Amino acid sequence: MNKIVTIGREFGSGGRELGRRLAEELGFAYYDREILTGIAERTALSEGYVQQVLEHRPVSLFPITVGRSLHLGGDPMLDQSRAIYQQQARILKEMAQNSNCVLVGRCADYILRDEGPFRLFVYAEMESRLRRCREKAPENEQLTDKELRQQILGVDKNRAKYYEFYTGRRWGDKLNYDLCVNTTRTGPKEAAQAIARLV
Amino acid sequence: MNKIVTIGREFGSGGRELGRRLAEELGFAYYDREILTGIAERTALSEGYVQQVLEHRPVSLFPITVGRSLHLGGDPMLDQSRAIYQQQARILKEMAQNSNCVLVGRCADYILRDEGPFRLFVYAEMESRLRRCREKAPENEQLTDKELRQQILGVDKNRAKYYEFYTGRRWGDKLNYDLCVNTTRTGPKEAAQAIARLV
Repeated sequence: MNKIVTIGREFGSGGRELGRRLAEELGFAYYDREILTGIAERTALSEGYVQQVLEHRPVSLFPITVGRSLHLGGDPMLDQSRAIYQQQARILKEMAQNSNCVLVGRCADYILRDEGPFRLFVYAEMESRLRRCREKAPENEQLTDKELRQQILGVDKNRAKYYEFYTGRRWGDKLNYDLCVNTTRTGPKEAAQAIARLV
Repeated sequence: MNKIVTIGREFGSGGRELGRRLAEELGFAYYDREILTGIAERTALSEGYVQQVLEHRPVSLFPITVGRSLHLGGDPMLDQSRAIYQQQARILKEMAQNSNCVLVGRCADYILRDEGPFRLFVYAEMESRLRRCREKAPENEQLTDKELRQQILGVDKNRAKYYEFYTGRRWGDKLNYDLCVNTTRTGPKEAAQAIARLV
């Protein structure tokens, strides 16, 4: 069976960089954007649209684990969100079967739970996340600290809702992960080297 | 400045074993029981009594960070708990000044916050904690799973209250730590080897 590492991450915590470096350290395939591309190819939807659906919480009063039987196909937006989720699940399973890999986001820890992945969660203090976002922002972006903080919290909130909707679990709850790494003081590079030993 | 590793841990998660092994890997001093002994020596209280005070939450309506000014010395039990806490803080600071070390429990992450310790939290799923406790229990102990589970949760609850009372922070909240390690699938030994690289 292939070795799988899944990475959940707070926005601005450096989780993607950590994932990429970890894949390099281990010689594993690294999938992030490729998951979106794969879904787009299989659904005839644009990559941008798929991303938009995946980054917004599904609009429903009930998580899918509770409310499945209550929805009888009456909501086309929700149906599409679900169809994309299912396509995503199929792609993740194929990726996991093809080779050892590191997968970022996309409820991969839950979708691949039967493969026993090593489940990582990456987080950081807000100050550190603000700094990282500033470093990566386009030069003409002129958000105040307050606006940037709200943006960060907004992305996290959507990730949390999406995750909870499809998994019935609490996003970022340490019991759902094998290791939670705070990148405030230990950078993604050093963390990746140490974590490679655990996998 | 010496390198300090502090370890908070859920009862039954193997945090002490991880700490001992980590100290071995790093060639650091390891302090756990020694902290109790030190307090006992300096306060003329028995080690057993000190342990009892430290393992029960202080009896007060307000955390010390909030309520300090409300207590004017009217509660001898609370005064003693505080005196022991202060002795403990003094001992931890001495230990941190003497050599590189690994310190288990005792709010060390908070007490030594100015020394920039590497702050570890060790946890595990309940099934794994039950198993570990059974393995370590005396042969004649005949607790049911339910009783043992209650005992485990009770110890954790006291640790959480004690920590929150003296630090004003939430025990086990991942933002208070640099790394949170789930020992359910990765044993303390393997975890210690990888963590040594991060310190």
